[in-house]
Amino acid sequence: EEVNKLLELKKQHGDNGPKKFVLKTPKGTRDFTPEQMAIREGVFDKIISCFKRHGAETIDTPVFELKETLTGKYGEDSKLIYDLADQGGELLSLRYDLTVPFARYLAMNKVSNIKRYHIAKVYRRDNPAMNRGRFREFYQCDFDIAGQYDPMLPDAECIKIVVEILSSLDIGDFVIKVNHRKLLDGMFAVCGVPDDKFRAICSTVDKLDKTFWDDVRDEMINEKGLDSEAADMIGEYVQFKGGLDLVNELLKDKNLTTKKNAVEALEEIKLLLTYCEAYNVSDKVCFDMSLARGLDYYTGVIYEAVLTAHSHQASASGEENVGVGSVAGGGRYDGLVGMFDSKGKKVPCVGVSIGIERLFSIMEAKALAAAKKVRTTETEVYVIAAQKGMVEERLKLCNALWDADVKTEQSYKKNTKMLSEFQYCEQNGIPLAAIIGQSEIETGVVKLKIIGSREERDVPRSDIVQEIRNMLASLKIGKESTSGN
Amino acid sequence: EEVNKLLELKKQHGDNGPKKFVLKTPKGTRDFTPEQMAIREGVFDKIISCFKRHGAETIDTPVFELKETLTGKYGEDSKLIYDLADQGGELLSLRYDLTVPFARYLAMNKVSNIKRYHIAKVYRRDNPAMNRGRFREFYQCDFDIAGQYDPMLPDAECIKIVVEILSSLDIGDFVIKVNHRKLLDGMFAVCGVPDDKFRAICSTVDKLDKTFWDDVRDEMINEKGLDSEAADMIGEYVQFKGGLDLVNELLKDKNLTTKKNAVEALEEIKLLLTYCEAYNVSDKVCFDMSLARGLDYYTGVIYEAVLTAHSHQASASGEENVGVGSVAGGGRYDGLVGMFDSKGKKVPCVGVSIGIERLFSIMEAKALAAAKKVRTTETEVYVIAAQKGMVEERLKLCNALWDADVKTEQSYKKNTKMLSEFQYCEQNGIPLAAIIGQSEIETGVVKLKIIGSREERDVPRSDIVQEIRNMLASLKIGKESTSGN
Repeated sequence: EEVNKLLELKKQHGDNGPKKFVLKTPKGTRDFTPEQMAIREGVFDKIISCFKRHGAETIDTPVFELKETLTGKYGEDSKLIYDLADQGGELLSLRYDLTVPFARYLAMNKVSNIKRYHIAKVYRRDNPAMNRGRFREFYQCDFDIAGQYDPMLPDAECIKIVVEILSSLDIGDFVIKVNHRKLLDGMFAVCGVPDDKFRAICSTVDKLDKTFWDDVRDEMINEKGLDSEAADMIGEYVQFKGGLDLVNELLKDKNLTTKKNAVEALEEIKLLLTYCEAYNVSDKVCFDMSLARGLDYYTGVIYEAVLTAHSHQASASGEENVGVGSVAGGGRYDGLVGMFDSKGKKVPCVGVSIGIERLFSIMEAKALAAAKKVRTTETEVYVIAAQKGMVEERLKLCNALWDADVKTEQSYKKNTKMLSEFQYCEQNGIPLAAIIGQSEIETGVVKLKIIGSREERDVPRSDIVQEIRNMLASLKIGKESTSGN
Repeated sequence: EEVNKLLELKKQHGDNGPKKFVLKTPKGTRDFTPEQMAIREGVFDKIISCFKRHGAETIDTPVFELKETLTGKYGEDSKLIYDLADQGGELLSLRYDLTVPFARYLAMNKVSNIKRYHIAKVYRRDNPAMNRGRFREFYQCDFDIAGQYDPMLPDAECIKIVVEILSSLDIGDFVIKVNHRKLLDGMFAVCGVPDDKFRAICSTVDKLDKTFWDDVRDEMINEKGLDSEAADMIGEYVQFKGGLDLVNELLKDKNLTTKKNAVEALEEIKLLLTYCEAYNVSDKVCFDMSLARGLDYYTGVIYEAVLTAHSHQASASGEENVGVGSVAGGGRYDGLVGMFDSKGKKVPCVGVSIGIERLFSIMEAKALAAAKKVRTTETEVYVIAAQKGMVEERLKLCNALWDADVKTEQSYKKNTKMLSEFQYCEQNGIPLAAIIGQSEIETGVVKLKIIGSREERDVPRSDIVQEIRNMLASLKIGKESTSGN
């Protein structure tokens, strides 16, 4: 049946003439060039070394899940899930995020505590806006701590991790907004929002980072059917931003203190801010009552990191609810794993998702602005023959260097021109050339040339690896002392 | 429409009672635990550092392609391609290998030369045999050199790379079989195989690494309709295995030398073997006329690495045509990129695919056999409080260590028991503990304890990072001198 369909397709195409097809990647997706991959690798390295510094493990899950595993987890966004064709067997869908597969993993493998990171691609049939970094295939980079622990200890570490990562990437100043789902619920109750409108109003509040209060108020009243009084009272609360002082003040708020969950939430935020002080990140953290975050599954602390220098740019990343300038976000979700357990056994979780696609865009733009050529290889030495007919000598020299773990390349042409070989080195940032000619072979030496300075010297064959290492080390020191990088 | 389908599905499930679902990964797929990921990372590191030593770049392509991009590339295996559901828009399929997307990338981006590696998952709706390492989702690890170059120079480097990788993994002895598609064609012609049966007979010959000649002969004659005389003549040729001597002998073979392509192929193999000598890998390479490899797109040299110690095990990897004990394979495919170019412009390519899933299995089995616990984190120091109520002091110490790039963990419990903390360190292979109590705080020291030897000493707060580094360095030396690892 499948074969028939294929044959038919082929025939249809064949009818239009020979080899007529569209040469493109699917809508909303892209290839990554070596330059983009090099930047990407640099960002991954920094992030992964942070996760490892905090003792995290990593896991992997399949790119697709049983369709029913994803059902009922994403609200109305479910329509953006990619399904696989029914080719017989199970109904499958591409993963939409890494959090639901993580929860499924924990429940299925009966893991009740783990600290893990997972960097992988996820898929959404969203309207792509590729020039603004919104794709249908994009990376997510999640760090989560699962387990029954004491309040705010894992939560504070997530915030510390975000500070470490964003600081290491050198992308300018940022602030991490913090709020609490139970405080939002308490606030809505206090303001007179009916219980069944909490979520709808919450997702309207979530728009405050992208739009003005007047529009949000308007949506609450005219679209969500809220009293104007309730809306205005919300409008008062969502202006509150601050630190421990604000928390203490709100703990005296006559209205909020009537709601048990609001008081609990404020106590948790207080503890979190205290731990943030011990972690020396208080200057980066701001308790902000306007932070809502869209996902349904949050049950406690929520947070979102925003670049302050970029906060008014009109770009948005592919992450959900990551607003203008937002580069990381997360929170506590204590109920999700229980949805996968037949007995509803809960595994409390808190995590953060690094908005890695947005970070890539920023780093790419930085590289472009610096007009600095991004090296896509790490080649240290280029082997060049001074005369024709020396291919095997070249191969032997390359072989000796590879065996000594020196990153080495040579031309795949039998006969080469010295000048164009040197140009190749310059264009590709290869620091050293190793040149052999008849005379070098006879005297048992190799001519080592520093491409940048054109300095060259003959080195005995037996010393060549050590001499290359010395030269590379001194070039590196020279570079650091001049560029300050 | 999609939403309705979802609702209907949900209803169906709802009717069966509350929360009734299958908790599993899709057929033929699996999760990777932290232990498996740690082994996997070790293998990747070695392979990638080899690719980088040879100056390779890396690229990435989307996990799905336009369906038509894959059409007509895989012969009858096309039925194993996963299609995405038609949810409006383009018809998409999951990638089946990395070679066709690579060829599409080259043609689309008009890249005429590149040396790249690509490590990513591919998808095949094959009959899974998971205990034998055959999955529906599995990694491929490809290295290819594209460009118009002089004969056998890129081809020889691919073979050198296979030798480097397999040697670095310490998985026992191996041999790389080499043959040439044009020699096979010449041989078939000489033996009297009709032109239109070349491919069918070739894929029968390909089974020689898994089955006996008698069965292959039988299939040729009874299923493929070949003369018994022709089959017997093939039977003579496919026994030839050897080195340069054999090539020179065949270059005098009265029959083969009547075929231009056979002579060309023998000259190329001769050159390849000469280059292999310069690369000092001759002892690992064997010219073997029974090697056929299944893929249609090969046009020149083909090769396959086989573990000699494993050669009679009944396991097979998820890779195509990777027979018993086979751990890498590849060859030259000069026509594939041209299939994607509207003017048919060719970009000659040669490459190798490392059978990485099989290598993972071997490394996993080795780790299991060694009964050595695989560390899944790299944590160096565990911070422990000697008394209750010291959470903030612990956080401050962790913070100082993280900021100094020391891999540090602590409990997420407020109050902990020293004994169980030490046990945790032992179980997880954490080498050092940093202990603070009231007296340590007062005297400005931290107690550092070596978990293995239970040796401990008080270190002034200001020296702690340096002292930790010294201790880790001496532990590492101690380990190397005792375990020889």
